[in-house]
Amino acid sequence: MGRERNLEIMESEIEHVAGGGLLHRRLFLTRSLGLAGVAGLSAAAAVPARAGDAVISNEFPDWMTRQGKGRSSYGSPSPFEADVKKPLSPDNPVAPGNGVSFTPLEKLNGIITPNGLHYERHHASVPEIDPAKHKLILHGLVKQPLVFDTESLLRYPMKSHLHFLECSGNSGRSYLPKPLQGTCGSLHGLVSCAEWTGVPLSVLFDEAGLDPRAKWVIAEGADACSMVRSIPMEKALDDVIVALYQNGERLRPGQGYPMRLFVPGYEGNISVKWLHRLKLSEGPAESRSETGEYTDLLPDGKALQFTLPMGVKSVITRPSPGLTLGPTGFYELAGLAWSGHGTVTRVEVSADGGKSWADAALDGLRLPRCLTRFRIPWEWKGAPVLLQSRATDDKGNVQPTRTALMKHYSPGNIYHYNAIVSWSIAANGEISHVFA
Amino acid sequence: MGRERNLEIMESEIEHVAGGGLLHRRLFLTRSLGLAGVAGLSAAAAVPARAGDAVISNEFPDWMTRQGKGRSSYGSPSPFEADVKKPLSPDNPVAPGNGVSFTPLEKLNGIITPNGLHYERHHASVPEIDPAKHKLILHGLVKQPLVFDTESLLRYPMKSHLHFLECSGNSGRSYLPKPLQGTCGSLHGLVSCAEWTGVPLSVLFDEAGLDPRAKWVIAEGADACSMVRSIPMEKALDDVIVALYQNGERLRPGQGYPMRLFVPGYEGNISVKWLHRLKLSEGPAESRSETGEYTDLLPDGKALQFTLPMGVKSVITRPSPGLTLGPTGFYELAGLAWSGHGTVTRVEVSADGGKSWADAALDGLRLPRCLTRFRIPWEWKGAPVLLQSRATDDKGNVQPTRTALMKHYSPGNIYHYNAIVSWSIAANGEISHVFA
Repeated sequence: MGRERNLEIMESEIEHVAGGGLLHRRLFLTRSLGLAGVAGLSAAAAVPARAGDAVISNEFPDWMTRQGKGRSSYGSPSPFEADVKKPLSPDNPVAPGNGVSFTPLEKLNGIITPNGLHYERHHASVPEIDPAKHKLILHGLVKQPLVFDTESLLRYPMKSHLHFLECSGNSGRSYLPKPLQGTCGSLHGLVSCAEWTGVPLSVLFDEAGLDPRAKWVIAEGADACSMVRSIPMEKALDDVIVALYQNGERLRPGQGYPMRLFVPGYEGNISVKWLHRLKLSEGPAESRSETGEYTDLLPDGKALQFTLPMGVKSVITRPSPGLTLGPTGFYELAGLAWSGHGTVTRVEVSADGGKSWADAALDGLRLPRCLTRFRIPWEWKGAPVLLQSRATDDKGNVQPTRTALMKHYSPGNIYHYNAIVSWSIAANGEISHVFA
Repeated sequence: MGRERNLEIMESEIEHVAGGGLLHRRLFLTRSLGLAGVAGLSAAAAVPARAGDAVISNEFPDWMTRQGKGRSSYGSPSPFEADVKKPLSPDNPVAPGNGVSFTPLEKLNGIITPNGLHYERHHASVPEIDPAKHKLILHGLVKQPLVFDTESLLRYPMKSHLHFLECSGNSGRSYLPKPLQGTCGSLHGLVSCAEWTGVPLSVLFDEAGLDPRAKWVIAEGADACSMVRSIPMEKALDDVIVALYQNGERLRPGQGYPMRLFVPGYEGNISVKWLHRLKLSEGPAESRSETGEYTDLLPDGKALQFTLPMGVKSVITRPSPGLTLGPTGFYELAGLAWSGHGTVTRVEVSADGGKSWADAALDGLRLPRCLTRFRIPWEWKGAPVLLQSRATDDKGNVQPTRTALMKHYSPGNIYHYNAIVSWSIAANGEISHVFA
């Protein structure tokens, strides 16, 4: 009855679906292999229990022999997870309030980003707003301009949706000629996902009365730079909300407390934080963030404005740089995919530099303009491997190769980078970022 | 073009669907009333903008004239939300580590509970576990006992799902003869909802090799009381996981760090925290928590064991006690519904003490064994009102009245209370908990 005879790897039972050790996505989901094959694959992770093991021998760990900590009125992570933090971009000496913090994607799992780890991108630091003194004005091409204070807005009808938010400049350093080294989060972590709850713009517009000439909504934030962005009316009436809650609780200051615009699927900058003004107009504001920034530089020297939906994209979060593979054997390869155009319908993974691709399992929820978690079993045999993922959405958009993407833009572009990401695994288990 | 003429309430356009001011759930979702009706209903909340308003007169609030706070590596709520905390049960002088903290349901929106506000129920405080020293043993009726350390378990294939967790004793003080006064959270807040990610038990059992005689899984926690609960094998193989992540990040200490069992839809106590042992056996453990506690006392003096799924249930979170209604006029009435048996398919709301009922809108996600957010527009005309909600699930279970529920149990019972909750609104806007 020993492990050696019954539980060894039975190679014939394992369905290899692509090169480099990729196994069928349903390997663990349907228990299709029975006991023996699965056991063999994960043998490197668990060890057989022996009579001397602590639990069997009734020796109790220290923490079972005494009382620990009490209940909390607001919980916090374990001290042993103190390294799960958002890396910050270097301080900007010219504009001290300008910078980003990245979601540490490689340390998370599932699709929700906890509020403490949602990425931030500020142009003029985080205003400390007293909600009792904050007002939102709705004016311009409306029949009746209106002012909402925070308390009154909280009485309005709301909607809740899970959506990703991605900075237009996420992964932007991948336009550089050589691959930067860093963790998955520090390279691609200007994307996060939360449940956003708030009042549909359509409800507020109904109350003020839309002038038919109104084609754009100009939103202004109450930060020190008065961030201004313009939203096409069709999108505004579709699914845009004034968000008041994030993952159940009121927005945090770094996310726009006491209220922000939330524009599903569009580049993050347009979801204006600390929202205090909505002006309806015939044309866009042509603000600094729509001319000097957040435009795509094209090879012919022109710049593209208002490319607002974020492209279909994916990244393998685990394994990824900063982690080192341990022993050879089974690993779950996991990552995130998303599209500002709709719903991710497929994620393929390659472990041989793009020669062959295998379908990953899309785990859990598949929602429009939301992160999707993908997973696929993978056997690492100790040889160097190139790992890549490629997402497709329900509009038929396919994540491009870096070579294809680079043809669309001037080398100086920094926005809307959504090309396939490549991680190289060396024979010693070290993982690095490469262009492939 | 003034507000007075065009935007007043047009009573004929408002579809009253039940007594007490309940309006059709699609009032705001389909914009079916056009501008006038909606504007009139919410007129109490917004005020017309005037030339003297700060935004129009270009007077900037203080926080727009200077830099604020910097980026954070781990965010926290606004200081203005410092009262959004979990109320704690009184300290227990006999058993200091025994108690609960309640999710403040009335201060949240959407369905996700942020990790800081997830309810806690501890029997012997919160052990401070070093994950590098923690082990999970799987033994009993298996072909090969196995030991997993935390690092190795993190390599296993995982699944993510959104699920509620509810303490079996949630709302238990509603069995008392008179209604206790308290906030919605302090009365019914031993329920929360999160995205849970972990390794299916079926994967671990496959690796160890199930002995066909194994019909129960006995789970033990590494807290000071060695919490022990038993799970039927059929459920264990269906959807039970060893949870490692909650809302994206690693479990917090109060939720079982570094690992807990998560048993969707079943009473919370069975989702054993700080999990360190899984023993497969022919029968249940008959542990203290299955005999002296967590059993339902019946009128004939017997006690019911292993009534594990939590019943279909709902509660109106807003308005609710502790909040006071302001002016008469439009309010969104919102609440939460859930069922351990499946998916909530319907929530009805009554504003006249149960004489008439209106269907609320089920907003956002409708998932099995998950919180569901319901919303319905309501016009308060200033008269006393009795608000109630009644949930139905896809198995046909309907939330019972308190009278019907009380017939099933002995007056001393404290578990599995899922009766309709009644909030009474007085003419002065004060809200209290009543039995009706």
